[in-house]
Amino acid sequence: MTSIDLNCDMGEGFGAWTMGDDASIMPLISSANVAAGFHAGDPSTIRATVRLAVAHGVAVGAHPSLPDLAGFGRRPMKLSPNEAHDLVLYQSGAVAAFARAAGVRLHHVKPHGALYNMAATDAALSDAIAGAVAALGDDVLLYGLSGSAMLEAATRHRVRAVAEVFADRSYQPDGTLTPRGQPGAMITDERASVEQVLSMVERGVVRALNGADVRVAAGTLCLHGDQPGAVAFARALRAAFERHGIAVAAPH
Amino acid sequence: MTSIDLNCDMGEGFGAWTMGDDASIMPLISSANVAAGFHAGDPSTIRATVRLAVAHGVAVGAHPSLPDLAGFGRRPMKLSPNEAHDLVLYQSGAVAAFARAAGVRLHHVKPHGALYNMAATDAALSDAIAGAVAALGDDVLLYGLSGSAMLEAATRHRVRAVAEVFADRSYQPDGTLTPRGQPGAMITDERASVEQVLSMVERGVVRALNGADVRVAAGTLCLHGDQPGAVAFARALRAAFERHGIAVAAPH
Amino acid sequence: MTSIDLNCDMGEGFGAWTMGDDASIMPLISSANVAAGFHAGDPSTIRATVRLAVAHGVAVGAHPSLPDLAGFGRRPMKLSPNEAHDLVLYQSGAVAAFARAAGVRLHHVKPHGALYNMAATDAALSDAIAGAVAALGDDVLLYGLSGSAMLEAATRHRVRAVAEVFADRSYQPDGTLTPRGQPGAMITDERASVEQVLSMVERGVVRALNGADVRVAAGTLCLHGDQPGAVAFARALRAAFERHGIAVAAPH
Amino acid sequence: MTSIDLNCDMGEGFGAWTMGDDASIMPLISSANVAAGFHAGDPSTIRATVRLAVAHGVAVGAHPSLPDLAGFGRRPMKLSPNEAHDLVLYQSGAVAAFARAAGVRLHHVKPHGALYNMAATDAALSDAIAGAVAALGDDVLLYGLSGSAMLEAATRHRVRAVAEVFADRSYQPDGTLTPRGQPGAMITDERASVEQVLSMVERGVVRALNGADVRVAAGTLCLHGDQPGAVAFARALRAAFERHGIAVAAPH
Repeated sequence: MTSIDLNCDMGEGFGAWTMGDDASIMPLISSANVAAGFHAGDPSTIRATVRLAVAHGVAVGAHPSLPDLAGFGRRPMKLSPNEAHDLVLYQSGAVAAFARAAGVRLHHVKPHGALYNMAATDAALSDAIAGAVAALGDDVLLYGLSGSAMLEAATRHRVRAVAEVFADRSYQPDGTLTPRGQPGAMITDERASVEQVLSMVERGVVRALNGADVRVAAGTLCLHGDQPGAVAFARALRAAFERHGIAVAAPH
Repeated sequence: MTSIDLNCDMGEGFGAWTMGDDASIMPLISSANVAAGFHAGDPSTIRATVRLAVAHGVAVGAHPSLPDLAGFGRRPMKLSPNEAHDLVLYQSGAVAAFARAAGVRLHHVKPHGALYNMAATDAALSDAIAGAVAALGDDVLLYGLSGSAMLEAATRHRVRAVAEVFADRSYQPDGTLTPRGQPGAMITDERASVEQVLSMVERGVVRALNGADVRVAAGTLCLHGDQPGAVAFARALRAAFERHGIAVAAPH
Repeated sequence: MTSIDLNCDMGEGFGAWTMGDDASIMPLISSANVAAGFHAGDPSTIRATVRLAVAHGVAVGAHPSLPDLAGFGRRPMKLSPNEAHDLVLYQSGAVAAFARAAGVRLHHVKPHGALYNMAATDAALSDAIAGAVAALGDDVLLYGLSGSAMLEAATRHRVRAVAEVFADRSYQPDGTLTPRGQPGAMITDERASVEQVLSMVERGVVRALNGADVRVAAGTLCLHGDQPGAVAFARALRAAFERHGIAVAAPH
Repeated sequence: MTSIDLNCDMGEGFGAWTMGDDASIMPLISSANVAAGFHAGDPSTIRATVRLAVAHGVAVGAHPSLPDLAGFGRRPMKLSPNEAHDLVLYQSGAVAAFARAAGVRLHHVKPHGALYNMAATDAALSDAIAGAVAALGDDVLLYGLSGSAMLEAATRHRVRAVAEVFADRSYQPDGTLTPRGQPGAMITDERASVEQVLSMVERGVVRALNGADVRVAAGTLCLHGDQPGAVAFARALRAAFERHGIAVAAPH
C-alpha cells in the first residue's frame, strides 16, 4: 500500500505566547517537528507538545533552529559548520529527552526556517547537520528538502534521509521550489494542491511551472499549521488519500 | 579500597567568554558537571568540555540551572515544580547528546547554583528534579547536598543519589552547612580543609563548628574550579588521598 | 472637572508572537505601558507600539520587567537593589528613545508583573526603582500600587508618583488588594466593577470586602487588555465616565 | 593644535564574565564604545562602565550589536533595515539613560562587529543606522569606517559622522582595509603601527600595501582593548602623540 508521511511544525509557542492550533492539527498528521528552544519552544511547551504527539500516535521529531527568538529562526545567520553541528545536537538532544520521558524515541530531525533553507544549498552546513543527527544514534531520520544538499549529506553520514515535498509551492523544471516572491511560486487553490500531492505520492512526479513533468522523491509532505485554512486543508488531503488508498504514516 | 569522587563545575564560559581553568582542573577530577546552557555553556562550549572530560576519563554530568545567564544561575527564582522538571530534563538531555556523541553515557546530574540551594530544602522542587533524572533513564545519578531533601526525593523516584560534601565549608551540628556570611562558614586554611575531607571520607564524620562530631555521607567532594588556588588545592588533596590509600573515582 | 487615567499594558508580543488586541484597546485608554524587552517587546514591537500610542494621543510609558521571557516576567526572582535599578534604567531608557523618535517624551514607568508585586512591599526594591526613574530626568512619573511602598519611595526620590487602582480586584479594610486565590478577590460582575471605579474616582473611597468604606488614592486605573472582554469593559467604563462627567486623561 | 580621538570597545563582559582590562585602558582613551546588551553588557555592567568612563573624562558612546550573545555579535545576520534601525535605537537609548544618570550626554554610536562590517558596504543598512542615530536627537555622533557607506548615510540623515581608522590594519589603494586573512592585512610591528597612525593624523595620508599614498580621513582611531599588548601599545601611541604635539580628545 502506498503511504505518505504528513509532518507539521508543532510547539511553536514560547512561555505565555502561543502559535497555531496544535490540538486541531495533531490528530491529522503522522509526524511532528517539535520546536526545540532556539526559535520557539520553552522546555514546558516542548513537554506538552511531545505528550500531545505521543497521545495521537504521532512520531516525535526535533525542529532545531538558528539561535534567534526575536526573528523566529527565519533570519539567515552565518555560522561555522561546527557551530551548526553543535546547535543541532544540543536542541535535538533536548527534545530526545522529552521523547524518552514520554515513552518513545526521537524519530527525526528537521532543521527549521533559515537553517533548513541555508542547508538545502550548502554542502558544508548539510554535512554538519547530518553529522549531528548521526551522533544522536538511535537511527534518527533527517528530513530535508527533496533534491537538496541535505539529502546527499545524510548519505555521506549514513543517516537515513526523508525527502520533503510541499503542497503549496510550485516546482521548477530542475525539481527545486520556485522561489517565494516569483510569479506562481505559491499554490493557493486547494484542489490544485491536492492534485500536486497525489501526483508526487502516487507517481513520484510533479508538474513544473513550465508544464514539464519532473521526477521528485516524496517521503514526507510538509503542512503549514500556522496558516488560516490549515486544518481544513489537512482534512481535504486526508480525504483524498483515503479515496486513493494512500496510507498516512511516519517513515520507519 | 576506600574511594571518593572529585567533582567540579566545568564549561562555565559562554561564547567568547571563559571562566576557570578547565584544562588544568580536568586531569585532577573524576567527574565533571558540564554547564548546560542556562547559566553558562553554549552548545560549542558544551561539546569542547565533554570531549575534554572524555579525553581524561572523567565522568560527564549535566549541570542544569535556572534560566539566568546575566545572573549566572545564582539568583533564586520562583518556579513551579513542573517548570523545574522541564528545565532539568531539557538541559540534561542536551548534555546527554554530547556525551553520547563522544562515546559515553551521561553519568550524573547536579543542579547548579540557586536551583541546587533551593532544592536542598524544598521537597516539591527536589521531587521535580529527581523525576526529571528518572525520566532520562540510563540509570543517571543525582548529585545533591549531603543530608538534603534532594537525596530523599531521589529515593522516592528510584534514582541513585550521591551525597555531596564540601572541603571549604564548615558544618553545623545537624549536618547542614554553616550559612555563608556567618562566622566560621568558610574554611580558608588548606590543611584544615584536607583534614575535614579525610575525616568525612575515611570515617563518615565531620567535626561541626561547635566541636561535636557529626555523621555525614560523603559520596562526592565538590571542588570550586573558579577560585584562585583551585589547582594547587586539588593537587594537595590528591596527594593526601594517595598517602591515605584513597582512590579518586566516579561512582558507578 | 474630575479626571482619571486609564492605563493598559501594551506591546506584549515578541517577534512573531502577538498578545492582546492593542489596536482595539489603544483608542480607549490614556496611557500605555510599553513592554520593554525583558518579558516581551522586541525593538520592532516597541517601535510599532509607541507609534500606535502617539497616533491616538496616548501617553507613552515604559513597562520594565525582570529578565524572564519564558516566564513573562511573572516569576519572582531575587535581585539586588542595584540590579533592579539597572534593569529599570536600561529598559526605560530604551523605550524613551522610541518615544523621542516618535516626537514625544517618556511619560511614566510602571514596573511589570513580579517586579511590580515585589516592589509593592519591599522598600529597598522600591527605592531602587524610584531612583532609576529619577535618573531618567524629564520628570517621568512612576505608576505604583495605591498605598504601596513604591509610592513612598517615589517621594523619597522626588519622583512624582501616580497611585494605581483596579476595577476587577476587591480591597481589604487596610486598602490593600485581596490576594488572588482568596474568596472574593476577583470582581467578575461588570456593573460592580464600574461602581467600584466610580466610587474610587469620585469620592476616593472603596468599599472593602468586609463592607467598610476605605480611603484610596486613585490616580490611574489599570485595564487588563489580554482578557476576553477587555474592549467591551473599557467601553462600558468610558460610557459611565461620560455619564458622570469624568474625563479620561493621562496625568501631567 | 592637531588632535585625534582614541576610542575603544568597553564593558564587554556579561554578568559573571569579564573581557579585557577596562580599568587599565580607560585612562588612556578619549571615547568609550559601551557594549549595550546584545553582544555583551548586561545593565549593571553598562552602569559600571559608564561611570568609569565619566570618572576619567572619557566620552560615552553606545556600541549596539546584532542580537547574538553566543556569537559576540560577530556572526553576520540578515536583518531588514527596519529591524536594524530598531535594534540600534533600543540599545543606544538604553546606554543614553545610563549616560544621563551619570551626568553626561550620549556622545556617539559605533555599531559593533558584524553590524559595523555589514553596514560599511550596505547603503540601506547604513541608512537605517544613521536614521536611528538621528532619532536619538542631542546631536549624537556616528562613528563609521573611514570611506564607508556609513559616513555617506550619516550625511543624508544630517548626523555628524566621525571617520574611523585602524593602527593595526593595512590599507588598499582605494582606501579600504585589506581583508583579514590576506597577506599583510595585519600590522603587528608596533613601530609601523605608530608610523601609520602619525601619517594618517598629521597628513591625512596612509601608505597602502602596494606602496601608494592614499588620502584617508582620520577622525578617530580604534584601539583593540582585548588584545595582549593593548595597554602597552596605547601608551606608546600616546607618547608618540605627545612628541608630535597631537592632542588626544573626543570630537565635539
